Amino acid sequence: MATAQTETGTPRQRYRAQVQEEIKKHAWEQIATAGASALSLNAVAKQMGMSGPALYRYFANRDELITELIRDAYQSLADTIHAAAADGADLRGLAQALRTWALADPQRYLLLYGTPVPGYHAPEDTTRLTSEVMTALLDASDAEGLGAMPPSPLQEHLAEHRGWAGAHPADPAALHRAVIFWTRMHGVLSLELAGHFDGMGFDPAQLYAAEVEAVVGG
Amino acid sequence: MATAQTETGTPRQRYRAQVQEEIKKHAWEQIATAGASALSLNAVAKQMGMSGPALYRYFANRDELITELIRDAYQSLADTIHAAAADGADLRGLAQALRTWALADPQRYLLLYGTPVPGYHAPEDTTRLTSEVMTALLDASDAEGLGAMPPSPLQEHLAEHRGWAGAHPADPAALHRAVIFWTRMHGVLSLELAGHFDGMGFDPAQLYAAEVEAVVGG
Repeated sequence: MATAQTETGTPRQRYRAQVQEEIKKHAWEQIATAGASALSLNAVAKQMGMSGPALYRYFANRDELITELIRDAYQSLADTIHAAAADGADLRGLAQALRTWALADPQRYLLLYGTPVPGYHAPEDTTRLTSEVMTALLDASDAEGLGAMPPSPLQEHLAEHRGWAGAHPADPAALHRAVIFWTRMHGVLSLELAGHFDGMGFDPAQLYAAEVEAVVGG
Repeated sequence: MATAQTETGTPRQRYRAQVQEEIKKHAWEQIATAGASALSLNAVAKQMGMSGPALYRYFANRDELITELIRDAYQSLADTIHAAAADGADLRGLAQALRTWALADPQRYLLLYGTPVPGYHAPEDTTRLTSEVMTALLDASDAEGLGAMPPSPLQEHLAEHRGWAGAHPADPAALHRAVIFWTRMHGVLSLELAGHFDGMGFDPAQLYAAEVEAVVGG
């Protein structure tokens, strides 16, 4: 996870940031072993040899901690997609970057896109990060050289309800392509990460690649 | 959930089945409010006014209870898909039945296809139920009147690794269609159930319908 903030500020701020990072590390371990919904600040405090009240000075409650983990995860995804786009990645390249990022840390992917944590409500301010990812996706979906996507009722519908695309000038076909890129890649990745293809015998990477081509080709 | 078993057997067996159903009802409520990974037999016992040891006579541990919930969920899905197929539903009809079933009980869908419960290992014997669903899907994917799916490297690959299709005679195109039906419908449904489309403004039903047409049309 992000460690940049540990390198700036006063010694006291740096110490605080280090402790926060350590708390988050333990929280990810708990999520992997017990699930996000079972995340317990007291259990994290115990693992770190801190008292509960001492830990609450860093995160006031479970939801605040989960929010930080979600923000870190979206930030990491946005950084990954931006880096790929800056390197000239097209839709295929973004798909590959997304897959590599998801497989590198399944818990991180599933915290963002898996079963919601009951009782937890995500804060509004992750919207900026998700729209950064969406913008990169819309850019790549609106590029030259992609297969034709003939007009359809869905494209009209998406063009009429395009608030989620912000001010992006993507045409209706690009809106459509960006949405199905998201849902189709997620469909394969989330089933793969949850182990549903285990024992089926085929290679999920080949399925993913074919789904990427279907989106690129239109 | 299934209640058929409460209607047969001795009074003692019927009582036992009734208590098991009640335990499962409380377990689903706990999953909705606290998450599957936080499911606690002691908490269920407390809600039912039973002692922990009394409840353990019905389910030896958390995993056994989760297994029963998963089995019920797969059974319900298999029944739903069978009923649709018996009514002559084609791939479009199966997709609609799947969506209605998923939206009727998001927790049930997400227990099967969402984030895996850490530390829980599904038993082998749910395989029968998942292959029943897959068989209905392969039948519908192998039917007449569907759009052409030209040969592709993925189809060759799926045909070479077709153990998951059992003895089903589906041709490579039908194997391909069945797999992308699953991953694409799951992609839309799981993001919808997890609330990712909330606030985006478009109608997920229209996206789902267009994805169904893309699979049917090839």
